[in-house]
Amino acid sequence: MTVNNLSIVLAERPTDDIVPGTTFAQKITPAPTPADLKDGEILVEALYLSLDPAMRGWLQDTRSYLPPVQIGEVMRGASICRVLASKSKQAAAGDFVCGFTGWTQYAILREGSFEPSSNYPGLRDPKDMLSVLGMTGITAWVGMTKIGEPKAGETVVVSGAAGATGSVAGQIAKLKGARVVGLAGSDAKCKWLVEELGFDVAINYKDADFKQKLAEATPNYIDVYFDNVGGEILNACLARAKEHARFVMCGGISQYNTSKPQGPSNITKIITMRIKMQGFIVFDHIKDYPKARQELSQWMAEGKIKKTEHILKGGLQVAEQGLVGLYKGTNTGKLLVEVKNPDEPPSKL
Amino acid sequence: MTVNNLSIVLAERPTDDIVPGTTFAQKITPAPTPADLKDGEILVEALYLSLDPAMRGWLQDTRSYLPPVQIGEVMRGASICRVLASKSKQAAAGDFVCGFTGWTQYAILREGSFEPSSNYPGLRDPKDMLSVLGMTGITAWVGMTKIGEPKAGETVVVSGAAGATGSVAGQIAKLKGARVVGLAGSDAKCKWLVEELGFDVAINYKDADFKQKLAEATPNYIDVYFDNVGGEILNACLARAKEHARFVMCGGISQYNTSKPQGPSNITKIITMRIKMQGFIVFDHIKDYPKARQELSQWMAEGKIKKTEHILKGGLQVAEQGLVGLYKGTNTGKLLVEVKNPDEPPSKL
Repeated sequence: MTVNNLSIVLAERPTDDIVPGTTFAQKITPAPTPADLKDGEILVEALYLSLDPAMRGWLQDTRSYLPPVQIGEVMRGASICRVLASKSKQAAAGDFVCGFTGWTQYAILREGSFEPSSNYPGLRDPKDMLSVLGMTGITAWVGMTKIGEPKAGETVVVSGAAGATGSVAGQIAKLKGARVVGLAGSDAKCKWLVEELGFDVAINYKDADFKQKLAEATPNYIDVYFDNVGGEILNACLARAKEHARFVMCGGISQYNTSKPQGPSNITKIITMRIKMQGFIVFDHIKDYPKARQELSQWMAEGKIKKTEHILKGGLQVAEQGLVGLYKGTNTGKLLVEVKNPDEPPSKL
Repeated sequence: MTVNNLSIVLAERPTDDIVPGTTFAQKITPAPTPADLKDGEILVEALYLSLDPAMRGWLQDTRSYLPPVQIGEVMRGASICRVLASKSKQAAAGDFVCGFTGWTQYAILREGSFEPSSNYPGLRDPKDMLSVLGMTGITAWVGMTKIGEPKAGETVVVSGAAGATGSVAGQIAKLKGARVVGLAGSDAKCKWLVEELGFDVAINYKDADFKQKLAEATPNYIDVYFDNVGGEILNACLARAKEHARFVMCGGISQYNTSKPQGPSNITKIITMRIKMQGFIVFDHIKDYPKARQELSQWMAEGKIKKTEHILKGGLQVAEQGLVGLYKGTNTGKLLVEVKNPDEPPSKL
């Protein structure tokens, strides 16, 4: 009996906000079966789908670090999957892998488009393959250790600090001996940053006196700013930059859903304060993944890096709405869609 | 008989444009005399005063790389001077020196606040102490060789390309084997850049189809952008940045005279194109001055770096209007005020 495979495809490019029911469409196709496998391929079912701020950019038909998702194409995305059948020596049936399945229930993945769990040293929770030990955690590691390079006693500010990447970035800066100020969008997030993750200060950027609080929290100005949000907050941090500050440009989530993005009017501070502002994409740093995972895994084991996930139940049907929520800041920690509860038995395709 | 010393002092901080007759005021004091000299000091008369885009920033009461010029204080500036009397072994009466006199006819300079002509190897024209071998030329050298680092075959774009710094920056990029596109504000400037200085292309940014011309001139996108202007042109160059481009942030002259500066809306290109955008101030690189001057001097001698000056006559009285004109782009090459014609005999103080 053929099993249905639900996928979510791009139906229409959004100009501003993603429009639920319009931007994406559901598509049912027959699920692949073990008989479809070629040598070096595995057949998987998705358990958790990663929702990431970068996704909005992938919908845009502009020159970027990846080609845009095409209209009608399954939305790009990474999942934690269970292997149902394998013709690869890298994974056996029953294994967990992390792969670029796209927003789909069942997929065939070729070697190179998935990572076996053996790539994640000391893995205790498969979800970590998408969070601390996945793209988001490694993004934090690359940005903070290779561009930000905070030194003991320096002041580090992280925006989007309660997000999957920001929370790890701030904790790495703490590990390097810096004083860390987190910026987030709710008092509950701020409390979590300080009380659970050990940030020195956390500020709710929605507070009317945000700029004053930022100034008070950075009396010696900012040595390293790790930016996940862009817009007004980036502008405020430019105004507080110390001489020779490093601005790690990781994301600009505040600007992704508008066709009229806002540039930082304080940009001439880059000159007067001799700032190095550098953008990066984690995929350029594949050769560093093993080292990053090794360190992150050890720090987690030592309790020096803590994490949380915000898991949306309801399967791929809720992914679209989940993505809309991501840009509104609904999540604390890594935002995942539970495509299938891993406690349920494997599907029979 | 006491000689009058005309100085120009800051009278009022401008909020937007400099207002001639309001921003600055003239002040007459008795000129210093040889009897005032202490050991290690020289008495000088200014011949040429340098007008620089950075001056607008010095009028602003904000945290910057130098303290703001105070109200009532002589306007900060560098001049080429003739030594009238000396109690320093670094310079003798009759020598030319370059010093931070401020906008004044006569000044006493202490060792450390002037540079003797012996610091400029192969000096043929004293004016070069303010142009190619001075702050402006060294600024181009530092920005291009230490941040931009163009390689053979790369595409380099320079804005404010017909200015004192931009014209040298572009020629250095040519020397490194790059393809160089200059952006300037008149067809005459563009002609000079291509026909005299050897730029590959020059574009008048005032042309209605500027963006299209920029795209045509950068078919392989921009590897290095040397920014002197900020604003719309910076934004347009962000849109044309290649992966891993270097943006050398030297100046933002289009934004200096407004209380509402404009940020570049394309700033997220820094992330997607992994741009390194770095600001610098030449004063941080004093240890490189000898090397920079050595190279620049040799390139001039070999005819590989050409230059021009735009000299305003009329003494310090015209400096204020000259500065206003600088921001309107009246000059090609280095803008100087002739405080005193060097062919006239030395003053007797």
